[in-house]
Amino acid sequence: MNILVLNSGSSSIKFQLRETAREQVLCKGLIERIGEPKGAISITASNGRKVERNHPLSNHAEALEKLIQLLVSPELGVLKSLADIGAVGHRVVHGGEDYSGSILINDAAIKRIDELSELAPLHNPPNLKGIQACKNLMPSVPQVGVFDTAFHQTMDPVAYMYPLPRELYEKHKIRRYGFHGTSHRYVHGRARALAGLENKPCRIITAHLGNGCSAAAIRDGKVVDTTMGFTPLEGLVMGTRPGDIDASLPFYLLDRGMPEKEIITLLQKKSGLLGTSGGVSNDMRVLLRESASKPLAKLAVDVFCYRLKKYIGSYIAALGGLDVLVFTGGIGENATPVRAKTCEGLDALGIELDPKRNEEGVRKEALISKDSSRIKVFCVPTDEELVIAQETRHIVENLKN
Amino acid sequence: MNILVLNSGSSSIKFQLRETAREQVLCKGLIERIGEPKGAISITASNGRKVERNHPLSNHAEALEKLIQLLVSPELGVLKSLADIGAVGHRVVHGGEDYSGSILINDAAIKRIDELSELAPLHNPPNLKGIQACKNLMPSVPQVGVFDTAFHQTMDPVAYMYPLPRELYEKHKIRRYGFHGTSHRYVHGRARALAGLENKPCRIITAHLGNGCSAAAIRDGKVVDTTMGFTPLEGLVMGTRPGDIDASLPFYLLDRGMPEKEIITLLQKKSGLLGTSGGVSNDMRVLLRESASKPLAKLAVDVFCYRLKKYIGSYIAALGGLDVLVFTGGIGENATPVRAKTCEGLDALGIELDPKRNEEGVRKEALISKDSSRIKVFCVPTDEELVIAQETRHIVENLKN
Repeated sequence: MNILVLNSGSSSIKFQLRETAREQVLCKGLIERIGEPKGAISITASNGRKVERNHPLSNHAEALEKLIQLLVSPELGVLKSLADIGAVGHRVVHGGEDYSGSILINDAAIKRIDELSELAPLHNPPNLKGIQACKNLMPSVPQVGVFDTAFHQTMDPVAYMYPLPRELYEKHKIRRYGFHGTSHRYVHGRARALAGLENKPCRIITAHLGNGCSAAAIRDGKVVDTTMGFTPLEGLVMGTRPGDIDASLPFYLLDRGMPEKEIITLLQKKSGLLGTSGGVSNDMRVLLRESASKPLAKLAVDVFCYRLKKYIGSYIAALGGLDVLVFTGGIGENATPVRAKTCEGLDALGIELDPKRNEEGVRKEALISKDSSRIKVFCVPTDEELVIAQETRHIVENLKN
Repeated sequence: MNILVLNSGSSSIKFQLRETAREQVLCKGLIERIGEPKGAISITASNGRKVERNHPLSNHAEALEKLIQLLVSPELGVLKSLADIGAVGHRVVHGGEDYSGSILINDAAIKRIDELSELAPLHNPPNLKGIQACKNLMPSVPQVGVFDTAFHQTMDPVAYMYPLPRELYEKHKIRRYGFHGTSHRYVHGRARALAGLENKPCRIITAHLGNGCSAAAIRDGKVVDTTMGFTPLEGLVMGTRPGDIDASLPFYLLDRGMPEKEIITLLQKKSGLLGTSGGVSNDMRVLLRESASKPLAKLAVDVFCYRLKKYIGSYIAALGGLDVLVFTGGIGENATPVRAKTCEGLDALGIELDPKRNEEGVRKEALISKDSSRIKVFCVPTDEELVIAQETRHIVENLKN
């Protein structure tokens, strides 16, 4: 079955067209600057062809219409007709407490995803725009929603409840949700297979380190805890977000006359690696390069690794031990010094990285710990689109039966 | 030397009169409701006598004047005259980055403590009121300031820097300071002695669990990290404060029309154990009693212990191993089920509590781990006033030499 996988953002849509039987990516690409004067669609097919279009795309509907025209065009040579698309799988950011798994999208689901925009005002609305556009363009093609929060829904209240007045949970559903669930789920599954622990009891920590960063503690396939919380601001240090800070700080800045909007921008866009490095960069590659000459670049890397190291310790305590640690995401798959620094001094906890394996285990599945390491450490490139395609196929095939 | 130890709050003053040569408490007590219609002073002397006065105390100066009159009164029988007070030791909450140790208070110090009120607007001003009153009442008696933040000043930037824009540190001195330093210092020293690790390398975690709660990671006598941050809101769950939460939450509530003041009250007075238990209590004793019948009381206890457990794991990672864990403070010294639940499942990390020793080790120095436990766990009652008296004597004696 050919499945179109969509990740619809506010002004961009990431997509892949996947063939599920052979788990192939037929083509993938990006639609950019929707609603802006200079829109763009770029597609790279596995047959080697590339297609680019540069023209205004007034909204998500127009963007997806143009995309589908290109997908079935002889120029790209990927699909013969619209009928070759068997289903569409959507990444949906927030499923609240309603969705602990993927779902077939119908009118009730659309209504609920819309209501959940309350919890994810920046993410669910553009996700819905992608869904609505597909519904209009391909009314007979089934659509599936795969939620970023779903994998974390196994958490116990002890992990997801904030120590806040109870009514904030009861009235506003304020609790820890966690994000990046599809990635944590995928790399956890791969690492479990690589470690020979499928269908065996196992405790795994997954560290998804990209522009956004989060870690999850997973026991026997079920998330026990995760670093992102009510929003993706909490937890680990990220490119421009701070992760954990003293919750008094917003008030301290408000009281000194900084407007609320400016504080939010400060926390979302100017903190994390970028802020700690004194503005050097939010890009770990740059910071690692500049570490030797710029003390604040080094400090940013050090704080990033130190805080991740502490979360690893905290999740070992939560899990009562650990079998496997997984690094994934742009930083996790590539930045070998970050992996080395994070694991430094964790021998006492059973983690011994192998320097050579660590250097070589880049952008591929690889064991990077020593044979003597009690805890196995893996690099596993993430593949959220694969999970979305698999989930979509699974749900659509069950429909037919 | 007789030393008056003062902890001056906004409307109350806790005090002890200590004789340092024999480390005796001559008397101790509390001044309450300063500036309110019904003030009160109560003193209990070690000679068995008790004195109580109930009348309005218009300000800190009047309150301390009355206190000193009682201390030298024949009724209490503790001191013959004012000349018997050799020095006054003050608890001062915030020493910023200026003070990593205790200091003799002179005009420059008063000015600096006043400036540091910027960082501790609720605490430094009443501390200063106590200092000023003593200066006026006993101009020739030396006064010493012992800072709550001082012991934590050994932290490395990697632990104290928030991943926020650099200028927040450079302009506003926004960083992790940590509090309860005098308590962490005292119980750390006692535990080190009890473990036979004086003058030996050692890694210790101290958990001060009272109405406010904080933990510290200490290597060879120097704090490496601590849970309270820029303010005492961050870190562990407390009686009415949440500790760590998603820093987006204040904005979520602001955007829903909750006034800033109300959110601050919510975080300072209505969260923590009180909030999680759905209003059952902020008192751990009540929650433990009600746990069997009230699920939210149990949840509050569970979240409290779970989050402490995670910090223990995180600090074991930060320290690269652990030799000693210490429980102190009202909860830490008394709540044996809290200690048991916190340490549950930490065998893999080397912590094995002994159930019988844990039950018996209450309000006294006691080893509460098994002999087989790789990490020794102690109960150590805290004694901040002892440290303040010792520091004061030390500084005053150096003056004379």
